[in-house]
Amino acid sequence: MTTHQGQPAIVLLSGGLDSATTLAIARDAGHACHAMSFDYGQRHRVELDAARRIAESIGVNAHQWVTIDLRAFGRSALTDEITVPKDRDATQMAEAIPVTYVPARNTIFLSYALAYAEVIGATDIYIGVNAVDYSGYPDCRPQFITAFQAMANLATRATVGDGQRMTIHTPLIDWTKRQIITRGLELGVDYGLTHSCYDPDAVGHPCERCDACQLRIMAFSELGMKDPLIASQTA
Amino acid sequence: MTTHQGQPAIVLLSGGLDSATTLAIARDAGHACHAMSFDYGQRHRVELDAARRIAESIGVNAHQWVTIDLRAFGRSALTDEITVPKDRDATQMAEAIPVTYVPARNTIFLSYALAYAEVIGATDIYIGVNAVDYSGYPDCRPQFITAFQAMANLATRATVGDGQRMTIHTPLIDWTKRQIITRGLELGVDYGLTHSCYDPDAVGHPCERCDACQLRIMAFSELGMKDPLIASQTA
Repeated sequence: MTTHQGQPAIVLLSGGLDSATTLAIARDAGHACHAMSFDYGQRHRVELDAARRIAESIGVNAHQWVTIDLRAFGRSALTDEITVPKDRDATQMAEAIPVTYVPARNTIFLSYALAYAEVIGATDIYIGVNAVDYSGYPDCRPQFITAFQAMANLATRATVGDGQRMTIHTPLIDWTKRQIITRGLELGVDYGLTHSCYDPDAVGHPCERCDACQLRIMAFSELGMKDPLIASQTA
Repeated sequence: MTTHQGQPAIVLLSGGLDSATTLAIARDAGHACHAMSFDYGQRHRVELDAARRIAESIGVNAHQWVTIDLRAFGRSALTDEITVPKDRDATQMAEAIPVTYVPARNTIFLSYALAYAEVIGATDIYIGVNAVDYSGYPDCRPQFITAFQAMANLATRATVGDGQRMTIHTPLIDWTKRQIITRGLELGVDYGLTHSCYDPDAVGHPCERCDACQLRIMAFSELGMKDPLIASQTA
């Protein structure tokens, strides 16, 4: 852990490309970042390892892990044994709420972030939601974030008793994956440390065919680059 | 478990007097009730036992337990080793946010309820918050509940994709403790099964002096009755 100065902020960190970029943006904004990651029975522990590596690489003042039990009542390809769709085109990805949707996931994650913010005296929460690639997720849309922020400002002792304002920052919300990667590279994010694949092999290598893999491979390709995860696999 | 017919509803059930009454009200409204209880490192396991007894007594179609880790970052007399205030008068109880406040607790609980509602296809969530006795808790106020409901209606596949409306029911929100008990008795709630004390003794008997004990003892007294928990202790 590092001990950066600055206003404290909570940054939700999954270990993926988007949340890594979001953490770099929060750091660049001068925040003392407190990363928060969730172990919710993901099938792939490689995602949790990625969150640890990114927090260390970019630098956080603290990294809070929360174990939560979505499996008890959730239905999702990310936690249950549902087949991950492969080789879908952009239209197929956009047309429906993906099978990988976890009920109320961002609501739950942001609620924990709100509690953590109150405890450490932070009034800024960063979340790397994106309404472009994940247009089918209700809880990735700007109107959801706005409503959550309004609720958060009525929910806690800091906002109600002490008159502070809680801000939910979504720097990536209307960016394309290409824009996200471009900004992250400017800020020095090492995307070789991230993990996005819904269906990695036994040693954590990406499948290259699920929606998450395809979106990042295409974005790096548009930038004339190779996804470092794929490059390292074939090296 | 029973198998009541009717529209499914999620009922948050702590094991206290308020949530027991709320469950009875939801049943009386004709709902097939799915109780949801949280194990968040409460110091007093008697509270968890009370939730089980009440669910069985009033009748639920399912009882979902969720283990959550508030202790990791929470500061509260309910989970930490903070002295529980005793022998406070009504003014003292009302004047400040109590030491027993858990950061963002109702936000987190309602977020889990929202996920559970989506999974079982429910559009009704019941929570026994009360703005009279707990005026110092930001997340017990009507404006918080209204904001949570607005957010919930933007958060899930059911509300966004399928056009359903989620309703957060707070039947007790402006009732006095006396009104709550009166309604519960009409509905046959056995308050001897509930647990409210913040500081029970080793076998679970109430201390009779913390805010929670005093509020219920006074309310039963106003009704010319003895709190059945106190009666059973001294019998």
